[in-house]
Amino acid sequence: MNVKIVGNILGKVLLAEAVLSLLPLTAAAVYGESVFPFVYTIVLLLLLGGGLNAIKPQSEEFFAREGFVCVGLAWVLMSAFGALPFVFSGDIPRYTDALFETVSGFTTTGASILSNPEQLSRGCLFWRLFTHWIGGMGVLVFIAAILPVSGDHYIHIMRAEVPGPTVSKLVPRVRKTARILYLIYLCLTLLECLLLLLGRMSFYDALLHSFATAGTGGFSTRAESIGAFNSPYLEMLIAVFMRLFGCNFNLFYLSLLGQVAAAVRSEEFRVYLGIILASIAIIAFNIAGLCGGTGQALRYSFFQVMTILSTTGFSTCDFDAWPEIARWILVLLMFIGGCAGSTGGGMKVSRIIILVKSVFAELKRMIHPTQVKRIWFEARPVSEQNVRSVHVFFFVYMLVTGIGTLILSVDGRGLTTNLTASIACISNVGPGLSAVGPTCNYSFFSPLSKLVLCFEMLIGRLEIFPMLFLLSPSVWKRR
Amino acid sequence: MNVKIVGNILGKVLLAEAVLSLLPLTAAAVYGESVFPFVYTIVLLLLLGGGLNAIKPQSEEFFAREGFVCVGLAWVLMSAFGALPFVFSGDIPRYTDALFETVSGFTTTGASILSNPEQLSRGCLFWRLFTHWIGGMGVLVFIAAILPVSGDHYIHIMRAEVPGPTVSKLVPRVRKTARILYLIYLCLTLLECLLLLLGRMSFYDALLHSFATAGTGGFSTRAESIGAFNSPYLEMLIAVFMRLFGCNFNLFYLSLLGQVAAAVRSEEFRVYLGIILASIAIIAFNIAGLCGGTGQALRYSFFQVMTILSTTGFSTCDFDAWPEIARWILVLLMFIGGCAGSTGGGMKVSRIIILVKSVFAELKRMIHPTQVKRIWFEARPVSEQNVRSVHVFFFVYMLVTGIGTLILSVDGRGLTTNLTASIACISNVGPGLSAVGPTCNYSFFSPLSKLVLCFEMLIGRLEIFPMLFLLSPSVWKRR
Repeated sequence: MNVKIVGNILGKVLLAEAVLSLLPLTAAAVYGESVFPFVYTIVLLLLLGGGLNAIKPQSEEFFAREGFVCVGLAWVLMSAFGALPFVFSGDIPRYTDALFETVSGFTTTGASILSNPEQLSRGCLFWRLFTHWIGGMGVLVFIAAILPVSGDHYIHIMRAEVPGPTVSKLVPRVRKTARILYLIYLCLTLLECLLLLLGRMSFYDALLHSFATAGTGGFSTRAESIGAFNSPYLEMLIAVFMRLFGCNFNLFYLSLLGQVAAAVRSEEFRVYLGIILASIAIIAFNIAGLCGGTGQALRYSFFQVMTILSTTGFSTCDFDAWPEIARWILVLLMFIGGCAGSTGGGMKVSRIIILVKSVFAELKRMIHPTQVKRIWFEARPVSEQNVRSVHVFFFVYMLVTGIGTLILSVDGRGLTTNLTASIACISNVGPGLSAVGPTCNYSFFSPLSKLVLCFEMLIGRLEIFPMLFLLSPSVWKRR
Repeated sequence: MNVKIVGNILGKVLLAEAVLSLLPLTAAAVYGESVFPFVYTIVLLLLLGGGLNAIKPQSEEFFAREGFVCVGLAWVLMSAFGALPFVFSGDIPRYTDALFETVSGFTTTGASILSNPEQLSRGCLFWRLFTHWIGGMGVLVFIAAILPVSGDHYIHIMRAEVPGPTVSKLVPRVRKTARILYLIYLCLTLLECLLLLLGRMSFYDALLHSFATAGTGGFSTRAESIGAFNSPYLEMLIAVFMRLFGCNFNLFYLSLLGQVAAAVRSEEFRVYLGIILASIAIIAFNIAGLCGGTGQALRYSFFQVMTILSTTGFSTCDFDAWPEIARWILVLLMFIGGCAGSTGGGMKVSRIIILVKSVFAELKRMIHPTQVKRIWFEARPVSEQNVRSVHVFFFVYMLVTGIGTLILSVDGRGLTTNLTASIACISNVGPGLSAVGPTCNYSFFSPLSKLVLCFEMLIGRLEIFPMLFLLSPSVWKRR
């Protein structure tokens, strides 16, 4: 392990967080609130970040191991410091609660311990939703985009931080790839903000909800989430943007280059669309009786499928009160999640496709053991190594969900609550069913359960391996 | 596809079922009940079985495909005919109910649609529990053991019918292996019957409960299951036998050869033991307050862990009323199930071991991509192909459980009921939680849901692939 270079990069991460914290500080100042919660946090970040940044690595050795550890630790540290403004301001007095809220923000989960976010100070509310935007694309990718970092070792960081089974460089240089991704991200966010303003949302609400949609987070400025605005235009707009942010960003790049046909031909894009349409149809049919008419049923099911499948977690109605079929479809959608290379969580559509194809390949192999049967995805053969890695990912995902549910059971809530809380957190969705349904919150869990859920959110957002590496002693041995 | 040889073997299966049906017929005669339900069934079996058996295969070609299709179809046919005595006697008037009960019997699940089995006629009750014994070791293995079948093609049948990721032949000849397995099975069953008689159980109850334990089935002659006898001796005895029948039968063979040390050194055996002890300890601690003392808590948790992990499904108390931790541990144990080569269901301990090891192997591969990292199990390297097959198995298992839950949701019951019914059936356990808990039964489900659960029981017992092959059109093409 090249500890020094990891320390140096972690320093840069904390400094970047200090810079990003200037935005909520400004918001607090504009609304005439105390800026000290942010000032104290920034000072602490500058001290530790500056100290770590001063470490000069003796070698530039940087491999997959360093990449995973770097990303894992960066996210833990970012969250630990990001929780401070909530505590300093007194908005969320208990540190475990503030940590839960911050991890939920950075991992774009959107699970909250607050029953009413409107009681927060404006500065803290801004920070709460801004963490979604930071976490959506990833802070290390951000650093790669803005700093003149040397070496090609950032590809290991991107691999660890960007969601999906494989990271394809859009352009040969990693730094340029990171810049293109962030530029698309920024432009889409601003576009959404503009369109929300046209729907007569206030600038503050529009900007913050754009942050939350962009990161597919799901925090809202209102207790009733998007339902509070009761506007079909806003719902439709946000639903469309949730779908966009749940797509692979590479497709936007292809579209920008004029290769729209290639983008639409994407297998993952089509399957994603198919899942959306099928789910909307079944749910709308299922809830039509409840909602008074097909029109309303379509409106609610459209929004809810978009928000769950993109793992955002906004709500316009209490889907926990829906019939069992609709509820269970939403749980299954939580597992699936967005596309690879998007800001969405879950297992990712591309992994599901590879898993399903591997079943057919296995059946064929059993009949014809001597034939070599490869799996094709997006018109390219998938290496055996990638298929294996996707299967291991699936197993660990289910294992962590199961063990998480077990630990949550200590608190004595019912199976539906524990299981869906575990799924909603590892898939970075936010709301689950029963006691963690869209009208409820996570405040009743014990501190231990909250820490377990924090771990699940991180393992979900970073796609398992960085967090596993942090826990594995052999990684920490010096080379 | 060599359709003729498959037809010929299916004929033998039906004839074997006719012969086996003589036993419940005898029981009915002894107790002075009408023997006609069995006579009619036997006549039908002889007619169709004799017809199919008369087909003379033109070639002896028999590969994996024929093996899977043979086993899949044999089990479907066996169940379809096995349901007839219940309908003919009027004990279970509706055919879907009778089919559910029979599939549950043959697959050694033990999920029942009867609220009170004591109302059945003695002959039908005998048949109901005897199906567990037939299904436990497999009817095709039975045929392989008794008939002088030509060729080595029975290894494909054993591979498809005997549980576990790999089938190792105990001795070079398949037929001899099948005989050894059945001999061990028969001796253990008789031993248990004898010991139950010593505990003052009636001969009828002792024999039938020995059948149910041997197959790790879980049907009982009593509505309150083993709890009806309220005898710590009987409970302890049955628990020990459930554990034995949940072990790999190869170990008994090794022990018979005097290689006890080798048997105890088995990795799967030790992990199985570890899971048992850990689960008993946690559950006993968890329910101590409920049961009035550690002694009682240990008694109940010992029996319940044994019955769930061996996927038998007997009960001595209502574990659905236990606290959440105990309930969720039982659900996780349902997934794990028995050992490979046992009569237990679930995913099998050996598969779980291979899955967990593959995670560590994957982490090591990520750090050192150039090193070749093999997985070792039972002191032998596991081939890449086997690891892949285990992963595919795991994915399909979870997928079928999830889709099963979705279809059960149509009936409008709660998530806990639907999910645990789906898990309890695919894992061949029997009782689940909530509305399918140990004091309840499956009668309230719609015919569609019952058929789905039948499919899950079969897919669980036959370990997925035979049933998938039946559904895949490409298999049916002629060579």
